Amino acid sequence: MTTTLQQLNSATPAEALRLLDGLYEHSPWIAEQALAQRPFVSLAALKHAMVTVLANASVDAQLALIRAHPELAGKAMESRSLTTESTNEQQKAGLTNCTPEELAHIQRLNAQYIAKFGFPFILAVRGPRGTGLSKREIIATVERRLGHPVDFERAECLRHIHRIAEIRLNDKFGFTPAVGNAVWDWHEDLARHSDPGFAEQGQLTVTYLTDAHRACAADLVARMQACGFDQVNIDAVGNVVGRYHGATPQAPALLTGSHFDTVRNGGQYDGRLGIFVPMACVKRLHAEGKRLPFAIEVVGFAEEEGQRYKATFLGSGALTGHFNPAWLDQQDADGVTMRAAMQHAGLPATLEAIGALKRDPSMYLGFVEVHIEQGPVLNELDLPLGVVTSINASVRYQCEAIGMASHAGTTPMNRRRDAATAVADLALYAEQRASTDGDSVATIGMLQVPGGSINVVPGRCRFSLDLRAPNNAQRDALEHDILSQLRRIGERRGIAFTTEEVLRAPAAPSAPAWQARWEHAVTALGLPLHRMPSGAGHDAMKLHEVMPQAMLFVRGLNSGISHNPLESTTSDDIELCVNAFSHLLDQLASEHKNGTP
Amino acid sequence: MTTTLQQLNSATPAEALRLLDGLYEHSPWIAEQALAQRPFVSLAALKHAMVTVLANASVDAQLALIRAHPELAGKAMESRSLTTESTNEQQKAGLTNCTPEELAHIQRLNAQYIAKFGFPFILAVRGPRGTGLSKREIIATVERRLGHPVDFERAECLRHIHRIAEIRLNDKFGFTPAVGNAVWDWHEDLARHSDPGFAEQGQLTVTYLTDAHRACAADLVARMQACGFDQVNIDAVGNVVGRYHGATPQAPALLTGSHFDTVRNGGQYDGRLGIFVPMACVKRLHAEGKRLPFAIEVVGFAEEEGQRYKATFLGSGALTGHFNPAWLDQQDADGVTMRAAMQHAGLPATLEAIGALKRDPSMYLGFVEVHIEQGPVLNELDLPLGVVTSINASVRYQCEAIGMASHAGTTPMNRRRDAATAVADLALYAEQRASTDGDSVATIGMLQVPGGSINVVPGRCRFSLDLRAPNNAQRDALEHDILSQLRRIGERRGIAFTTEEVLRAPAAPSAPAWQARWEHAVTALGLPLHRMPSGAGHDAMKLHEVMPQAMLFVRGLNSGISHNPLESTTSDDIELCVNAFSHLLDQLASEHKNGTP
Repeated sequence: MTTTLQQLNSATPAEALRLLDGLYEHSPWIAEQALAQRPFVSLAALKHAMVTVLANASVDAQLALIRAHPELAGKAMESRSLTTESTNEQQKAGLTNCTPEELAHIQRLNAQYIAKFGFPFILAVRGPRGTGLSKREIIATVERRLGHPVDFERAECLRHIHRIAEIRLNDKFGFTPAVGNAVWDWHEDLARHSDPGFAEQGQLTVTYLTDAHRACAADLVARMQACGFDQVNIDAVGNVVGRYHGATPQAPALLTGSHFDTVRNGGQYDGRLGIFVPMACVKRLHAEGKRLPFAIEVVGFAEEEGQRYKATFLGSGALTGHFNPAWLDQQDADGVTMRAAMQHAGLPATLEAIGALKRDPSMYLGFVEVHIEQGPVLNELDLPLGVVTSINASVRYQCEAIGMASHAGTTPMNRRRDAATAVADLALYAEQRASTDGDSVATIGMLQVPGGSINVVPGRCRFSLDLRAPNNAQRDALEHDILSQLRRIGERRGIAFTTEEVLRAPAAPSAPAWQARWEHAVTALGLPLHRMPSGAGHDAMKLHEVMPQAMLFVRGLNSGISHNPLESTTSDDIELCVNAFSHLLDQLASEHKNGTP
Repeated sequence: MTTTLQQLNSATPAEALRLLDGLYEHSPWIAEQALAQRPFVSLAALKHAMVTVLANASVDAQLALIRAHPELAGKAMESRSLTTESTNEQQKAGLTNCTPEELAHIQRLNAQYIAKFGFPFILAVRGPRGTGLSKREIIATVERRLGHPVDFERAECLRHIHRIAEIRLNDKFGFTPAVGNAVWDWHEDLARHSDPGFAEQGQLTVTYLTDAHRACAADLVARMQACGFDQVNIDAVGNVVGRYHGATPQAPALLTGSHFDTVRNGGQYDGRLGIFVPMACVKRLHAEGKRLPFAIEVVGFAEEEGQRYKATFLGSGALTGHFNPAWLDQQDADGVTMRAAMQHAGLPATLEAIGALKRDPSMYLGFVEVHIEQGPVLNELDLPLGVVTSINASVRYQCEAIGMASHAGTTPMNRRRDAATAVADLALYAEQRASTDGDSVATIGMLQVPGGSINVVPGRCRFSLDLRAPNNAQRDALEHDILSQLRRIGERRGIAFTTEEVLRAPAAPSAPAWQARWEHAVTALGLPLHRMPSGAGHDAMKLHEVMPQAMLFVRGLNSGISHNPLESTTSDDIELCVNAFSHLLDQLASEHKNGTP
């Protein structure tokens, strides 16, 4: 017998509390306080209400909840599952059947963990898909999280406690994120293709037009066809384009999609989520035999990461007519030109064919893109979805500080011209200056004293600057202040600086009407609305040049890490994203009836 | 007709001023104020009095003096010498006979120089030996000094003005630093030997027991013999040992010397000055047929820099019984063991023979060492000599900061665990903390974000720490504070630090009686006494373990740069150093008569 949301909303407080019994370990106060916010429009709303109660609780209360969980070692000793999410968890995952060596290793890890943090290790062992983590994954997670700072790890434990509660709640309410699970599995399936040298190590690398890349494209074609797209093809640059016709042949189209290439040893959600989510929507429409007053064109962009060739955004750029003819002669690391790679892939490799991909914006309503956040914000705020306000403006520099190398022992502090401390000075200023804005970022990602010696005051220090802000003016002010400070530091310390601008990209603010549609969709799901800039560049930046665009972000686990195998998201969050996309389609359809879009 | 110091001291003010006419360009006020300090005990005292007047003058007065000099381009156009140090300067050095291309280049440099600094370029073209710089050297110097900060370059111009005045004063007083010139030439001559791969490029590199190294040893043997040493030999580790007997066979010995090996592409005074200066004293004693109540043992240490083998201080260590037997099996970059290198050099290569080099301290009065400063202090203070109070205690660490790599665009500033900014934070603290002591130094000489990318927040940052202070307690306090701050930064920023201690050397304070002898010697020359720690390690550190020691530093030009071909010192300063060493010998002799040592 499962509970329904209606039951919960209409129950007496005591009865409602009983219905939510056991979600959090020995902590009925969480459900009790959350229930004060009844009625809930969705399970997602109920989950968020509970998350908020715990987030607002004292650190002591949070620690008491964490400490109510058993220790890792004890759990392993008992050969039981790591946590007790539900009665059937033990079969699904956990530290069962450990060897004596594994047990000893787990006991050591547990002792280190307790010694460092003072609370037990907590992990939602059913994982992001709900089907369970392997023993190997669990042990690797303990090892990795041992490196966290204490406060950070306490928050991570709370997030896992919420994930455990989410799964328990799903079980209680008989809810399975079936669409989310399916889309999660599509990612898993597509990730079986990887370039040579990476595939062997279980790493995901899919670069432009390799065998793995073309296998991905073929898979996408097949899956789009299975979803019920009317037309599916691979275009002249290798993009996979699926079209689900509108109610009429003259209907304009909604353009959407993202990329399926990856960085080296990357994650399997980056880009691909933005192809699969609208595919799931089309699958749903097709299953329901439903046609909208507009077509849906989903593009799996072949190239966004610029890994094999320095041709970032090649795929989306082809749709806006920005294909650089010189790219065809560019060689990869093995000396293969892009032209040869295209010909090998059966593509025409002519500028005519590529030029023909340019879209006529008047045929399109606009462009939307779903993407995993690739950052820590939604994960930390316990929010599944975030609405993008703008893709940030950015500027990048390669710089060098030139002082005077001198003997580390014999040069008094007040007679040094130390290039490295000058850069240190700038790094702290840039950090503080960007922090002042709140939503600007400044990064020195490359930093090196070339040929540095332990006993030589650095005469040179090379470094990079990456500055981003939600709009051009804010980026320009950030840049101005940091470069001014660089000059001041140079004068004060007797250091010459060289600065070479290597990239300058304008901001791509979301089109207000399209951003509003995402906002309505998120709100309709019962989720709090969170607006955020995109610090990373996306295909939407290219389409922004020719049509209105807006993006939706999905929470990433593991602090939102990306370009990394640890990139992850739950099938629950994917389900919410598919529902948000469907809601946006519904809004467009109903606006169309009312003559708005 | 030359002037004498006695004339100057007894002249009327007007007459004295006339005697010093023309030392500084259109600036009689410098001599005028300096003359108020009459009588002068030495030319060195007079020079220093003038230097002090200018150092205490206003910046405006200093700039007026600099601007009283003609511009570089004009001088080159006239095919005249760069400056007008004296009437015979034009024949000795300068920008004579420039090609049209050279002229155009000089004009460009001159325009850049004037634009940057606002005053004309000044160079003492007669150089450190008084015999003149080549056109190539002059042009290279302009190019190099163009990179200086304005204040620094103004001070450099003043130093060159003083050097011009020094040479003019020498001419006026008919003084030639004959011994200094000879010893300067010995350095130049010895520097003709250099290891393969460096010799071809005009670079000086002499590493342990190479052909060049053995040629240096042979030269030293011959020169010691020519100076009148009674016994000269090459010992079992390749040290060149010369002994000038005392008045009696039973007389104890004064031990002195320094090393003749070099770093790669090093300077020709580092180490060698400490061998040649006492040799010049012995030469003087021998010429006068004089015997002291003690023997003088001058050692040219074969190995101090640890370049070919990691066996720093091998030469001096052999005299204190610290030869590491494992060194014999150590291989150089070409796989040649030290044993093989020794055998190839005709050395016995046995631990017995090496062990026999250990000195009996009861046979020695103590150890003194002369060394070029290898730092900027004396140069900046316009002092030829400095008395060392202590060889600094030091400690070195190799460290790594470990944070979390994340996307530079998507990770808000307040959610970063940036390993590089954590190190920046530490670098500024270390700089400030060492500065507070005044005579401590802290250096981050190696600094690198491994595999850093322009768009990735650094997850790791490797760096070195080199901390030094004049005594162990001060070094320990510095170390304690910096490591405590490292821990605080780690906690505040969520960064883990690893620190590996790679060296810890105790301070070697000068023996008070020996330091006092150097102080008396410097004062007797009419020079102000400047006491200073040695930030660098020296052979005296090793001898410190078994006998009293004290060192004397000689000013280095070019901000005291060392381990660099720009290392330089004047023959005037070398002459003063030889005189100081002779004075120390005289003191010892007279103390011996009075029964003190």
